[in-house]
Parts: sequence; C-alpha cells; structure tokens
Amino acid sequence: MEYYGSIEAGGTKFVCAVADEDLQIVDRISLPTTLPEETLNQVFEFFDSYQLKALGVGSFGPIDVNQKSSTYGYITSTPKIGWTNMDLLGTLKARFAIPIAWTTDVNAAAYGEIHLGAGKGTQSCIYLTVGTGIGGGAVVNGAVLQGFSHPEMGHITVQRYPNDTLECVCPYHDNCLEGLAAGPALEKRTGIKGQLLEVAHEAWSIEAFYLAQSLMNYTLVLSPEKIILGGGVMKQTHLLPKIRESLEQQLGGYVSLPDLEEYIVGCGLGDNSGTMGCLLLAKEQRGLM
Amino acid sequence: MEYYGSIEAGGTKFVCAVADEDLQIVDRISLPTTLPEETLNQVFEFFDSYQLKALGVGSFGPIDVNQKSSTYGYITSTPKIGWTNMDLLGTLKARFAIPIAWTTDVNAAAYGEIHLGAGKGTQSCIYLTVGTGIGGGAVVNGAVLQGFSHPEMGHITVQRYPNDTLECVCPYHDNCLEGLAAGPALEKRTGIKGQLLEVAHEAWSIEAFYLAQSLMNYTLVLSPEKIILGGGVMKQTHLLPKIRESLEQQLGGYVSLPDLEEYIVGCGLGDNSGTMGCLLLAKEQRGLM
Repeated sequence: MEYYGSIEAGGTKFVCAVADEDLQIVDRISLPTTLPEETLNQVFEFFDSYQLKALGVGSFGPIDVNQKSSTYGYITSTPKIGWTNMDLLGTLKARFAIPIAWTTDVNAAAYGEIHLGAGKGTQSCIYLTVGTGIGGGAVVNGAVLQGFSHPEMGHITVQRYPNDTLECVCPYHDNCLEGLAAGPALEKRTGIKGQLLEVAHEAWSIEAFYLAQSLMNYTLVLSPEKIILGGGVMKQTHLLPKIRESLEQQLGGYVSLPDLEEYIVGCGLGDNSGTMGCLLLAKEQRGLM
Repeated sequence: MEYYGSIEAGGTKFVCAVADEDLQIVDRISLPTTLPEETLNQVFEFFDSYQLKALGVGSFGPIDVNQKSSTYGYITSTPKIGWTNMDLLGTLKARFAIPIAWTTDVNAAAYGEIHLGAGKGTQSCIYLTVGTGIGGGAVVNGAVLQGFSHPEMGHITVQRYPNDTLECVCPYHDNCLEGLAAGPALEKRTGIKGQLLEVAHEAWSIEAFYLAQSLMNYTLVLSPEKIILGGGVMKQTHLLPKIRESLEQQLGGYVSLPDLEEYIVGCGLGDNSGTMGCLLLAKEQRGLM
C-alpha cells in the first residue's frame, strides 16, 4: 500500500494524517503546538509506522515560499515562542527522504476545497478562514497562489463601519480586517464571546460589513470563481447571508457578480479542507519529482 | 512574411498595430473612438493591407471574458454611447477568420510588461494604469488573470487621507481608489490639472497615500513579484518614490517586501505595453489553436 502524509501546522495544534493512494484517511492525530522539538518528535513518532511516498505541509505563517531564498521553508516572523525563523521544511526533509510539498495552511485549504470541496469544477477560488486570526489562500489556474511570497489577505485595510470606534486588535495596523473582525475583535467589541452572542446583536452586522468589504476587494483584485469561508467564526451560519447582503450593498452594482449564493459559500470539506489539500499537494509533488 | 495584429481598444482611442513574426512593429495607427461602426471600419481598413495570422485585442471594460457566457467577447456595462453590450470580439471574428486573443487593455499591458518590459524574469506581476481612470491587470504563473471575470482593481475601497473631504468622483462608490486618485479627482481636489501642479503640493502626498494603500492591499491579496505603474498621472516621475515611502509607512513592517525600488516600478515599454502584450497574446493564441 502507498501512503501519503499531511501536516497542517497550526499555531495552536498540528493535525497530522495518513491516507492511502485514493486519499482515504487511515490515521490521524491532533497535537498541541508547544516547542518545535517537542511537537515535531510527536509528529515523527506518528508517521513512523508508515512508509510515506510523499508529504504535504500547510503551515501557519508567515512562511518563506520563495525557492530562491536562503530561508526557503522557514516559518519566519511569527511571535510564537520557539518558532520564529524556524526551518520547518528543512527539519522535515532531514527526517523524511521523500518529496514534500510546502505552502501555507490556507493555500492548502483552498487547494483541498477546489479539488474535492465547495470549489469543485472551478479553476480559481479564495479560501478565507475567520477565527482567532483571519487568513486567506487562493488557487489560480489550478495552482496555489504564490508570488514573491504568499497572500496575507487578513491584513488588508478596511473602512470603518459607521461609529465603530473599536481599537484595532492588530499590533501592526489601525484598520485592518483581522484587527477589526477576527474572533478577538468580535469579543472585545461586545465583551461577549462570539459563540455566546445573540443572532440579532448589531455586532454581527458590523462583522458582516467588514468581511463583505474585504471579499468585495478580493473580488475586484483577483476575480476568483468562488469564495469559500471557513474557521470558527463562520460556524455562525447566520453570518453568511448577512455577508452576501452587505457585499451587494457595498459594491453598488459596479460589477456583475455570479449568483452570491453560489459565489460566497461555506466549506465543502468541513474541518478537513487543509488536510485534504495537503494530501493532494503531496500526491502532486510526487508526480512532479 | 507572417504578420500579427494588435488592437488596443480604448474608450478614447483605438491603437492598432501590425508586427512581423519577430514582433517588430511595421505599421501602426491611432483612431478616435467614436461609434462602433465608424471606428471599426477604420480598423478594418488599416488591417486590409496585411495577411494577419492572428490578432490580439486588449479592450476597455468592463468586458465579458467568460467563455461559457452568452455574452463572451462583449464590452458590457460601459456608459460610452454605442458601446454598451457591444459584441466586439464577435464583430472582429466575423471579419477576420484567424485566431483572436481577447482580454482587457490592462491585462494585455501586464502581459507585455512581464515578457518584454519591467516584469521580465518574473512569473507574476500587476500592471496598474493611473490616468483618467485607474485600472489594473495581472499575470499569474505566466497567464493573464481572469476568473469569473477580470480584475477591476481601480474600484477597491480605500481609507481616507486625514481630513481629505473630496467628494468621491466615482458614480458607484463613496471611497474607491479611482474616485479619489484618478486624474479627475486630482484635479477636483486642487482646481489645477495634475500636469500643472507643483511637485511640492500636498495633493501629491494624498495621491501617493491612496495609491500606496491600494498597492499594499494588492500585495496582501496577490503577492506578485512586481508591480508596474503606467498611465498619464505616473508620468509625474516624482510620484513613484513618494508611493514607495508611503507604502512602507502604511504596511507598518507587517510583511517583508522585496526591495521597493525593484518591486514598484514604472513601465519598461513606455506607451507600448498594451500593444506588445496584444501581439504576444496573438502569437500565443495562434500556437494554441
């Protein structure tokens, strides 16, 4: 049997999985992200029982995806203790002498969703996760989107919702999407955790406004065929229709969008987008090498 | 001799060119954009002396680039009299039984610049023209960027420069880039045409602020290897350093950008970006068919 491995390297947990050649998952583990050596030893131990043919890694960022760079494969300027400027890909390569695909967690999720989830049948999509942070990945013409680096969609500037005076939670910016609309901002604005906030609370209109504004701007820049929303905050299913409505209003009829119910959608793979994307990238990487 | 044709279909003028197989331009004409029949008859007459092998068209927009759409090849919701919902590609196909490449004027310019101009050696770039309007095109992994439609980068929302109370010039939006930073906005803010505005005028700082904010957001969404700026307003060469400086300040050190002198640059092909892009697309289209 041929096996493929997946590592979704998150700032809170590492989700590792093994799948057979049909990408059916045969084993999976979730490990807390502590210090690199400790976490990675557990990762190695998990994969030890399998003869992997290739591995796909979707990592929290920022990461270096520029193959010409001397720090290619590193997690770079994360504030997470122990992981700053950490050569994750190199460490994995030293352990596994197999092809390893390397991209961001959200690019991997976009790749999973376009092949097996909500983006099936399209050539381009954006995947945005809205949770503790906000991050976006994309697939364009069937390939994950990378240029000089990878997208950092959560940090685009947004215009304020009328009279929203919340101090932006992002330490870098005064008015970025993540700082005004990720989970911590939602909680800071109301003093109530998002999960406990009633559906009719104005905070959801504010949340929808910022997300819709950003999706509109992503659309005007990238023109994807589909936008797929995931992450903890999006588990509030009443939010999706509010976002569509606000987007339509903010766009002011300027461009003809596809039917918004088809264009802005939830995940097709639930919490498996990233894992399936990593597995697909692993399989593809093997074919390429 | 094998010839390729280029049509840069602009709202003000049509620039048509003929090149040999090495893409050396052998003939060129600039025609005012009046009514479709009148303008296109002049276009046909210009090309009549040449046996073209393929044609590349870069058109003003919005246009329909979705091959599955019933209005594929149309100029769609332009306010320009006579050109609304006009089947430009179909009209050209009826006249020329040759392969015809079809994209936006700015996508064509991005394609020209990445192959022969300021983007040479990269796989991805954005081309932004700043003039009477603001429009952006892009190349990703060597192909022009199109998804459900084409980019409309000039209409992303921007945050206001402190105390800038200019009424946004865009009829669709209150705070979009084009409405606050295209030529007409620049002139409305000061009462003076941009060309006549002294270099030290604060209006240039405002202009640089809006453009830099937008380039930052494009970067966070698309992560291109290069951003190339063209159009009438960018002929003010003092503007480029101001944009770089403002971008650095607004980004707040969040991501490591390439050297800004290399990353944000002027055109390599002067006013020929679009024409060369159309010719390249024509040559490529022929190879594809």
